[in-house]
Amino acid sequence: MRAPDSKEEFRRRLDAAAQDTEAELDRLFAPAPLPGERARPTRLLEAIRYAALGGGKRLRPFLVIESARLFGVTGASALRTACALEMIHCYSLVHDDLPAMDDDDLRRGRPTAHKAFDEATAILAGDGLLTFAFDVLCDPATHDDPAVRAALALALARASGLGGMVGGQALDIAAETADAPLSQSEILTLQAMKTGALIKFGVEAGAILGKAGDAQATALSRYGAALGAAFQIADDILDAEGDTQALGKRAGKDADRGKATLVSLLGMDAARVRRDGLVEEAIAALDATGFGCATSVLAEAARFVAARRN
Amino acid sequence: MRAPDSKEEFRRRLDAAAQDTEAELDRLFAPAPLPGERARPTRLLEAIRYAALGGGKRLRPFLVIESARLFGVTGASALRTACALEMIHCYSLVHDDLPAMDDDDLRRGRPTAHKAFDEATAILAGDGLLTFAFDVLCDPATHDDPAVRAALALALARASGLGGMVGGQALDIAAETADAPLSQSEILTLQAMKTGALIKFGVEAGAILGKAGDAQATALSRYGAALGAAFQIADDILDAEGDTQALGKRAGKDADRGKATLVSLLGMDAARVRRDGLVEEAIAALDATGFGCATSVLAEAARFVAARRN
Repeated sequence: MRAPDSKEEFRRRLDAAAQDTEAELDRLFAPAPLPGERARPTRLLEAIRYAALGGGKRLRPFLVIESARLFGVTGASALRTACALEMIHCYSLVHDDLPAMDDDDLRRGRPTAHKAFDEATAILAGDGLLTFAFDVLCDPATHDDPAVRAALALALARASGLGGMVGGQALDIAAETADAPLSQSEILTLQAMKTGALIKFGVEAGAILGKAGDAQATALSRYGAALGAAFQIADDILDAEGDTQALGKRAGKDADRGKATLVSLLGMDAARVRRDGLVEEAIAALDATGFGCATSVLAEAARFVAARRN
Repeated sequence: MRAPDSKEEFRRRLDAAAQDTEAELDRLFAPAPLPGERARPTRLLEAIRYAALGGGKRLRPFLVIESARLFGVTGASALRTACALEMIHCYSLVHDDLPAMDDDDLRRGRPTAHKAFDEATAILAGDGLLTFAFDVLCDPATHDDPAVRAALALALARASGLGGMVGGQALDIAAETADAPLSQSEILTLQAMKTGALIKFGVEAGAILGKAGDAQATALSRYGAALGAAFQIADDILDAEGDTQALGKRAGKDADRGKATLVSLLGMDAARVRRDGLVEEAIAALDATGFGCATSVLAEAARFVAARRN
């Protein structure tokens, strides 16, 4: 069931989440040190702000904010959690763009952090963003209940660490120099770790903030997993057919590197079918939450992820 | 007051902390994924183990374990917290050794991580270690009380982030290309952030685990701050006069880079006087904890830090 105005409402909420996230990140990365901090070095802070502010669709913050809203959780708890997740996402882009990694010059239509600053500053800015995500989650300002704060931080660490995003990056690098191309199941594991884990955390964070029961938490996780997989296939399709200007980053990278994706493995048409099937799976999982039409904005997000042009 | 056998007891406890830390890190970085982890990629895990295992005096874990012991906290809570701190320390060495940073080939008498593996793997291993430190602290296995877990993670994030260790690294890099040498107060701030913050966290973690009152927590923080400052001066003295073989890392780096330290600013003799004064300050702070002779091992640690040869 799709309300006629749900696409418009989704756009409105996505824009609102992006604006709120931008404002909160700006505040969190103000020059004044927090208690326990000696100083915030100027150039490092500039690089962190460069990497975190002024860019991106803020899809991950949106997922936190909208999944928390299902449980009636709004305000600072949801927004600060959203910012912590975005910090992890932004740090991963900074490190991924480094010369020793993907060696990219362009990100969100601007020079990458190591181009705008220097490599050492980019490495440290990434480390600082990563560390600060856990500062934000564990600060009492995020939630009164320390059990919620610790659970959020644990879930984010597990999604983004060696068994999650960082591990996925490592598998991605290994695949470029491997003798044999990855199998479909290896590609799915790599993508679930590299991209999927953080997207899934976005909605799991809402469940943690809302102290969801098992059934609702499981349904949201299933939504998040399907959404993350659809997102990655859409990304691979865009890379294969997209143009650099629309993407704001270099297109055609996967083919240049002989990188195995579902597009290279299954072909473009089958990849589109798979992507659309995952969108339907994500929407079906939302139905199982029992929240009814309150999930229509998240359903629209799944359609958006598949149809986006950048 | 110094018990005749306190030096021997310190050595025994330092060795025990090192052995326990090694065994626990080995267990934490086992191949089997934890719940919520998809997989632990082999080469990444090898690099993490290479960076974290088999090296160092484990002074920081010792500080956690011994400060927690003052409050009667022993076992998994202290040891896992000790391991989390050591993960942050080890990740900082891996990233600091990178070509774009200090560009070092030798660490603890072995090739640095990016030499033993490759740059991309070293960057990701550092990111994985950093992230896993927060996983460990926020896991219920570390403490039953989520308020303790969240407080530990918040304090570690603040000590190691942009207003702590990472910020200190950034100031250190900036100093190498600055027009004017750093002032004494700038050097002290840099060192308090780069080295001091993590050492200070070691004993603050004991206070958090022990749910210390304000007076004891403050006294332990003062001990940790003085210890950290003494440690850094001793490090600068060793770099100026030490030999590469004994250090297990390249000596004479500071002079090569014209880096301002208290040795270059005040001269060797005055630096030694300052170092010894800080040791006395650290020991005086321990007296203020009211724990009596239970702190003699921590007092011995302060003497050790000043007198060490590597």
